[in-house]
Amino acid sequence: MVTIGIDIGGTNLVAGVVSANHQLLAKAKCKAAECPTAEAMVSRLVDLSQEAVRLAGLSLTDVRAVGVGIPGAVDRFHGVVIESVNTPFHQTSFVELFRQKWDIPVYLENDANCAVLGEGLAGGAKNASSVVAVTLGTGVGGGYLREGALELYIRNGMEIGHTVIETDGIPCPCGRRGCWEQYSSATALKRMTREEMARTPDSIMWKMCGSLGGVKGRTAFDAARQGDSAGKRVTQRYLKYLAIGISNLVNIFQPEVVCIGGGVSNEKDEDFLYPLQEMVEKHSLHKRLGNKTRLVKAELGGDAGIIGAAALYQEFIDR
Amino acid sequence: MVTIGIDIGGTNLVAGVVSANHQLLAKAKCKAAECPTAEAMVSRLVDLSQEAVRLAGLSLTDVRAVGVGIPGAVDRFHGVVIESVNTPFHQTSFVELFRQKWDIPVYLENDANCAVLGEGLAGGAKNASSVVAVTLGTGVGGGYLREGALELYIRNGMEIGHTVIETDGIPCPCGRRGCWEQYSSATALKRMTREEMARTPDSIMWKMCGSLGGVKGRTAFDAARQGDSAGKRVTQRYLKYLAIGISNLVNIFQPEVVCIGGGVSNEKDEDFLYPLQEMVEKHSLHKRLGNKTRLVKAELGGDAGIIGAAALYQEFIDR
Repeated sequence: MVTIGIDIGGTNLVAGVVSANHQLLAKAKCKAAECPTAEAMVSRLVDLSQEAVRLAGLSLTDVRAVGVGIPGAVDRFHGVVIESVNTPFHQTSFVELFRQKWDIPVYLENDANCAVLGEGLAGGAKNASSVVAVTLGTGVGGGYLREGALELYIRNGMEIGHTVIETDGIPCPCGRRGCWEQYSSATALKRMTREEMARTPDSIMWKMCGSLGGVKGRTAFDAARQGDSAGKRVTQRYLKYLAIGISNLVNIFQPEVVCIGGGVSNEKDEDFLYPLQEMVEKHSLHKRLGNKTRLVKAELGGDAGIIGAAALYQEFIDR
Repeated sequence: MVTIGIDIGGTNLVAGVVSANHQLLAKAKCKAAECPTAEAMVSRLVDLSQEAVRLAGLSLTDVRAVGVGIPGAVDRFHGVVIESVNTPFHQTSFVELFRQKWDIPVYLENDANCAVLGEGLAGGAKNASSVVAVTLGTGVGGGYLREGALELYIRNGMEIGHTVIETDGIPCPCGRRGCWEQYSSATALKRMTREEMARTPDSIMWKMCGSLGGVKGRTAFDAARQGDSAGKRVTQRYLKYLAIGISNLVNIFQPEVVCIGGGVSNEKDEDFLYPLQEMVEKHSLHKRLGNKTRLVKAELGGDAGIIGAAALYQEFIDR
């Protein structure tokens, strides 16, 4: 038996077929923009799911359940999307709509939680007894796993990106000031890079990007590797803030593993993971008790959410 | 049947007899300084426990178990105190020592966790499905309860006091800078009060305290109530930082209740709890989803640790 994992993003909709041992067998996708209404999107997701099953060379009777990762808040027990800013879903009885087209068990979860679950089951945090996952993207998302299962009582995703690490710092759209994601998201890294370029007209980053508009998450890391001092200032500042936020989580949860995902985490270990590990260890209170937290990188990339969503049915069976 | 709860403080040792419904029936105490060695202290704790049983008009056969709150890190499964700065215990087989004098089930736990458990079972957070407890004392301590039980996997207490809320802020003995407890502990409140007095020679706080050495946690609150602007600046600043740290926890855990203890929390609700509630609500992401976190005050004071310690046996039976 296989399961389907669906990842609903602001840009793409993806459905994947996943084996019982968390291997992605096939996937089908389309643009989210093609589905302007909730009904149209659910209908399309059913089609994508069934297409992926065919691509995997299987039949619909091989499918045990469907799991869906939603960028927003869900009522997982009633299968309702409560609120989801970048999708047509709002107070939507998602599971009911889905099952009108395909009558199969369907489970909903916040998409960040799905990605965490995927990494914990089959990725960078596999086999760890406790995991804090941190995803560095447009914002900073996170989740908490224990014994390979989501701590579901932390509802709607842990909003770790919206913890203040700089009192009276940069305003955040959430209404607070100095939220961690204003310093450690990929968006923040790009902003810091642009700010540093504006201060440093002779930085090689200007050559690399052409203009401020060409700045990417990796720009400062690439420049730093070439010896550019402006690039180094950006990466050092970025890693410092990232270490502060991660250390805060380590001091709260004392997890066995912190699993870091998002494009930034793909930087070379000597430029990203190793310096980060060193800083976090210095800030962690529990290392002296032998509870040293390991920092690892997420391994599944965009597939983590699909693999995690496909495993949601376990969450409800095992508990 | 009753249980014994022991609270080991830097100053006092207290043993209390607690009923099955978490009522404190009697207690006995002495000064910690009377017991210079681990053996002497354990021996004294056995005596205090048995004295408390007699004071309650009961006999030793009425006692089901003993629970002990230790200011430090414990290995609760082996009954060992790993590290405890202000006691004679270090790598001490506490339970073994205790049972050599009184052969009864003995459970160890971090003292902050015991206080959290006490408040969750019988105090301000009674009946809440999830509780983050925050204690404002020399430092800022905390814990997390779900369904009235400690989340024991968060080992050695949640070090919420050592989460950075002000990057490059005030140095903390833990080695970090800008830790929350440098802004929100009772110690921090007194420091802020002294700083403000030094800046404001005409503050009525000088009259109230005589000198900087006379500053208490309540000084600024008392002065603010009398219209003193320096006192108001201190309390506003203190509450602002406190709200930031509490909001960080609310955004991470989304608990039903945050339970605030320590002397400062005894300030009048209109000067402390109500403004704090308002600020935290503003900073909380989940209120719009109907997950509004309630702020309550701890109710048991110094007895929370005893009542929680006395309930530790449940933690091991129920799980």
